[in-house]
Amino acid sequence: SPEDGAAMVAADVHLGAPTDLDALLRFAKGCDVVTFDHEQVPGEHIRALAAAGVTVYPSADALHYTQDKAAMRERLGALGLPVPRWRRIGTAADLAEFGAEVGWPVVVKAVSGGYDGRGVWLVAGPDEIASQLAAGTPLLAEERVPLRRELAVQVARSPFGQVAVYPAVETVQSDGICVEVIAPAPDLDDDLATEIQQLAIRIATELDVVGLLAVELFETEAGVVVNELAMRPHNSGHWTIEGARTSQFEQHLRAVLDYPLGECRMTAPVVVMANLLGTAERVAGQSLDERLHHLFAAEPGVKVHLYGKQTRPGRKIGHVTALGDDLAQVRARAARAVRVLREGSH
Amino acid sequence: SPEDGAAMVAADVHLGAPTDLDALLRFAKGCDVVTFDHEQVPGEHIRALAAAGVTVYPSADALHYTQDKAAMRERLGALGLPVPRWRRIGTAADLAEFGAEVGWPVVVKAVSGGYDGRGVWLVAGPDEIASQLAAGTPLLAEERVPLRRELAVQVARSPFGQVAVYPAVETVQSDGICVEVIAPAPDLDDDLATEIQQLAIRIATELDVVGLLAVELFETEAGVVVNELAMRPHNSGHWTIEGARTSQFEQHLRAVLDYPLGECRMTAPVVVMANLLGTAERVAGQSLDERLHHLFAAEPGVKVHLYGKQTRPGRKIGHVTALGDDLAQVRARAARAVRVLREGSH
Repeated sequence: SPEDGAAMVAADVHLGAPTDLDALLRFAKGCDVVTFDHEQVPGEHIRALAAAGVTVYPSADALHYTQDKAAMRERLGALGLPVPRWRRIGTAADLAEFGAEVGWPVVVKAVSGGYDGRGVWLVAGPDEIASQLAAGTPLLAEERVPLRRELAVQVARSPFGQVAVYPAVETVQSDGICVEVIAPAPDLDDDLATEIQQLAIRIATELDVVGLLAVELFETEAGVVVNELAMRPHNSGHWTIEGARTSQFEQHLRAVLDYPLGECRMTAPVVVMANLLGTAERVAGQSLDERLHHLFAAEPGVKVHLYGKQTRPGRKIGHVTALGDDLAQVRARAARAVRVLREGSH
Repeated sequence: SPEDGAAMVAADVHLGAPTDLDALLRFAKGCDVVTFDHEQVPGEHIRALAAAGVTVYPSADALHYTQDKAAMRERLGALGLPVPRWRRIGTAADLAEFGAEVGWPVVVKAVSGGYDGRGVWLVAGPDEIASQLAAGTPLLAEERVPLRRELAVQVARSPFGQVAVYPAVETVQSDGICVEVIAPAPDLDDDLATEIQQLAIRIATELDVVGLLAVELFETEAGVVVNELAMRPHNSGHWTIEGARTSQFEQHLRAVLDYPLGECRMTAPVVVMANLLGTAERVAGQSLDERLHHLFAAEPGVKVHLYGKQTRPGRKIGHVTALGDDLAQVRARAARAVRVLREGSH
């Protein structure tokens, strides 16, 4: 759509659906490299582009592991990497058996297509997914991990095979949506921090990822397990725009263009990104633009990114980034920024 | 031209000459605010836009002091601010008298239109500017200041009157072209650093500047004197893109849009910007793109900005920025980056 954020600011825009192979082929003509910003480009289209001589990064083979949660779990398990116990579910009996093994409740996920908490259900018994089963949605069940918190780590990898990894971050979820990212993850054990970075490098290398890979993790008493993968600039990496010497967007472009990767060093000891969820256009008698003025007056160091989307309650319409030395202060500043933008200044 | 850097990346481009009032009026239709990136927009056109109801920042009255070096010196002198001794020159006799007063050689400048060392002549006697006088070029003469080094400082000012000032920087010139900017200016006396920031705020306020003001200064044994003014994002402020929490470009937009200004704090203790002057397209058997690969491999933390201009010996075609803790190391890294881009990797 011409109303998409990227279309509003890029100089050279070709409109077309990612499901329209002809549009993709027309777009790719003359491109050195084609990449994408979400995972829902059909794998067969990426293969068709590659067959037509187009260089596409990440490849369809790599991207497959973000499009098929079961394939990802099988592959990581085969590599000996930590994933929660899980199983493909075709019938209520499958689920009953799995639940009896790992204990209820269990987490049921659509194998493909979910995001921001969609396609994920916490179920207390085998009959709760009857409608999904009846619809024929491919499903998997996963043990409910006794998690301490959620973490994420981003690594970039080039066709040459160079990797560059950012510090692991803590991601805070609310209703299945990431609302806050803290970099670096506070009080993370040094050895575990290194282990997480090595895990990300191993996955990127084994899966032959080119571009950015985000690994979402659960931290438990026993260490970490992999929750999900994403192969693109990711919400958990928006903090890098101001918070790292090389932003995830620059890094993704360096990677897919096979340039040597940029430094991942942070620009401040603590960086906090908070997502901005949509509200009504006017709040407390103030437009969003007025609320932005109030915020900038109160917080000259906070950076605001608005995605140009129509505001709609609960939808991510932007994010804020705060930087500083003190964790509690930086978190408070980011939280206050979101509050002023959502609720107005009082 | 469609080949201009901005035209190549901006989503909404209107081509037209800044000297074409009709083109300016067409462009301004529907704009909340109009601003510009160089000072050569004719003052009468800016006045005509303002008369047509367009908000233009900086105003023609403010911009006048960057377009007329004599008017600037008169105004700053009247405000009691430090400027070198100077005089308007209409004849060789005027110059002879001035040179006898302040001592030869003196610096002669075109009142309007010079940049990067053009329109500036160091003259040893009254007859050396005969051709300029014969051409009728309005000129001024200025004492040659016994300078220790050159400094610059940038301040932003909003219509509301808020100001935000960056740290003073050292600018290193070669053949009249700025080749290096060091932020903050090394070993600058604390009191003098504050005095320089206050001087910039005073000038911006007295001249009613809206947007960015760059004040170029000579540091002497006795303090500082003002050399030139610019009212726009300026070469001496390119370091802020990565080196300050708010880049000069964001700050200029905040100012002309009357948003509260952003934090000017640095992102590293030392930031060095080095200009990249054009060379032949291929050097040491390497294209510019190959040289860029070599640079990125050697210096993952150095940032490179290429302006998309055709390379031409001596022309500024881009710049590099290095950040770090140690002045000598950061300068060496920026210098090496420029050397690799200009001379190739050996």
